[in-house]
Amino acid sequence: MSALPDITIQEVCPRDGLQIEPTVVPTDLKIALIDRLSALGFRRIEAGSFVSPKAVPALADGNEVFRSIVRREGVIFVALIPNLRGAERALEAGADEVNFVMSASETHNRVNIGMDHQGSLSALAGVTAAIGRRVHLNATLATAFGCPFEGEQHEDKVLRLIENYLRLGAQSITLADTTGMANPKLVRQRVKSILGLVPRDELTLHFHNTRGLGLVNVMAGFDAGAVRFDASLGGLGGCPFAPGASGNVCTEDLVNLCRDIGLNTGLDLEGLIALSRELPSMVGHPVPGQVAKAGRACDLHPVPLRLTLTD
Amino acid sequence: MSALPDITIQEVCPRDGLQIEPTVVPTDLKIALIDRLSALGFRRIEAGSFVSPKAVPALADGNEVFRSIVRREGVIFVALIPNLRGAERALEAGADEVNFVMSASETHNRVNIGMDHQGSLSALAGVTAAIGRRVHLNATLATAFGCPFEGEQHEDKVLRLIENYLRLGAQSITLADTTGMANPKLVRQRVKSILGLVPRDELTLHFHNTRGLGLVNVMAGFDAGAVRFDASLGGLGGCPFAPGASGNVCTEDLVNLCRDIGLNTGLDLEGLIALSRELPSMVGHPVPGQVAKAGRACDLHPVPLRLTLTD
Repeated sequence: MSALPDITIQEVCPRDGLQIEPTVVPTDLKIALIDRLSALGFRRIEAGSFVSPKAVPALADGNEVFRSIVRREGVIFVALIPNLRGAERALEAGADEVNFVMSASETHNRVNIGMDHQGSLSALAGVTAAIGRRVHLNATLATAFGCPFEGEQHEDKVLRLIENYLRLGAQSITLADTTGMANPKLVRQRVKSILGLVPRDELTLHFHNTRGLGLVNVMAGFDAGAVRFDASLGGLGGCPFAPGASGNVCTEDLVNLCRDIGLNTGLDLEGLIALSRELPSMVGHPVPGQVAKAGRACDLHPVPLRLTLTD
Repeated sequence: MSALPDITIQEVCPRDGLQIEPTVVPTDLKIALIDRLSALGFRRIEAGSFVSPKAVPALADGNEVFRSIVRREGVIFVALIPNLRGAERALEAGADEVNFVMSASETHNRVNIGMDHQGSLSALAGVTAAIGRRVHLNATLATAFGCPFEGEQHEDKVLRLIENYLRLGAQSITLADTTGMANPKLVRQRVKSILGLVPRDELTLHFHNTRGLGLVNVMAGFDAGAVRFDASLGGLGGCPFAPGASGNVCTEDLVNLCRDIGLNTGLDLEGLIALSRELPSMVGHPVPGQVAKAGRACDLHPVPLRLTLTD
């Protein structure tokens, strides 16, 4: 096993990237995608979710996906869950880690999970009691940088909910900017505060590029001490309130940025670009990532013959 | 006149945004676009160029554009020029400022301008001699953060060329990342060095979002002391080597970012978003900007009825 990278990127394309797609990607293609991703150097891949198949039909095949993917040594396959039933299904399917999710905004949590905070925290306590230490338990706080219904989320509330997560057995934490409302000033403040509660190796930041700030917020989080980030191949994913806007932070764009500024991710950028270029045919539309279109900055071009501006 | 904004954004959509468009935008639409832009608070608009109409047919109507636009008090209308002939045409048309351009990469300069460095610098000397102080003379160094043919551009060369610009009469400087090859580490270094030669109010940074780093580089430049940036409504523009990739830094995305972190731009964000939403029908295709699709982070949504993840 090589040394830890400077930055750990958890690939979330198979879960957050595909969840909003109108066309359900066939299970065998999903499995092939995850197998190719795990060959490119990721140590963590969010491979699916165990939620209501009525709410997210695109991910109803989580059981088959987790049972069929190649298990590479050193790669942790994560399953998103909203409750105990999801945790039990994830364990049965063989997930290495469950990622419990609740929203900082109680309004958003009611819409998304169908529970108030107390309901979700009780569910988390049930998950801890049932799965004990059999798998790693991560807890995500969604809408941690803003809610599309409530607006700003006060830092005191966010910190209190994180304290509840830790008290109830969460072993690591994700702060999610679910609908792309974060900005670099807020990210710096919030990360500095959270790092008073959670060591940096147990904190993941999850940003969306909805308003063009995905990589700006990653850099702000890194400046404030964060070293773990979610990203999605091709920037796949999205926000239901921003049709046409970009989705998750794009994995290969982030890896390219890290490479250019000298941060090691342990990932194969050329392999990521090649795989990302296959995504449009898989999902049936162009994807937002830029580097797969433009190539790396170090990829030089032949000198063309053309009319000059002074002809 | 109100106090100077924290950040000055020069709008370049009418020049750099439209220059690469395959469909020539009719002159009257261009004039209407510029008039609407100048009503939204810009102090600087690059309204056209005086280059070979064979090389850039999309901007062949510069004379009519400059003669027809509404001249609002306090708004400087800039014309890009590659040589003395362009400067003379710009002056005849009534440009308030000429923006001379040469590339840091001599290979790129030969392809783009048809001259080596010595040829371009002689042209600049001719421009200074001919136009004297009749209009403000800005000088742009293109490919200042990397060249698609030569690759990295050494800082010593960049600094030496800027010194030549200043010696030959340039009153302000633009560093341009012509094909989106900059990264935040390089931007910080280069801006700190250049600010040893040029006061911050006379330095503009021009970034492209080709590899998703436009706003990341703006923030890095700002952190290093820069306060003037080029941007293009809708993120219009592009790079001939990256088909499908984003263009210039998107004006409304940058203004939205500034707003969220408390920096004043003096610009009307809602007006910019409304105008940007008209661009696709003007150019015949979607444009890359995100905020015009997603709305501002402070624009809240009604709570929907939907299936929850735990149904």
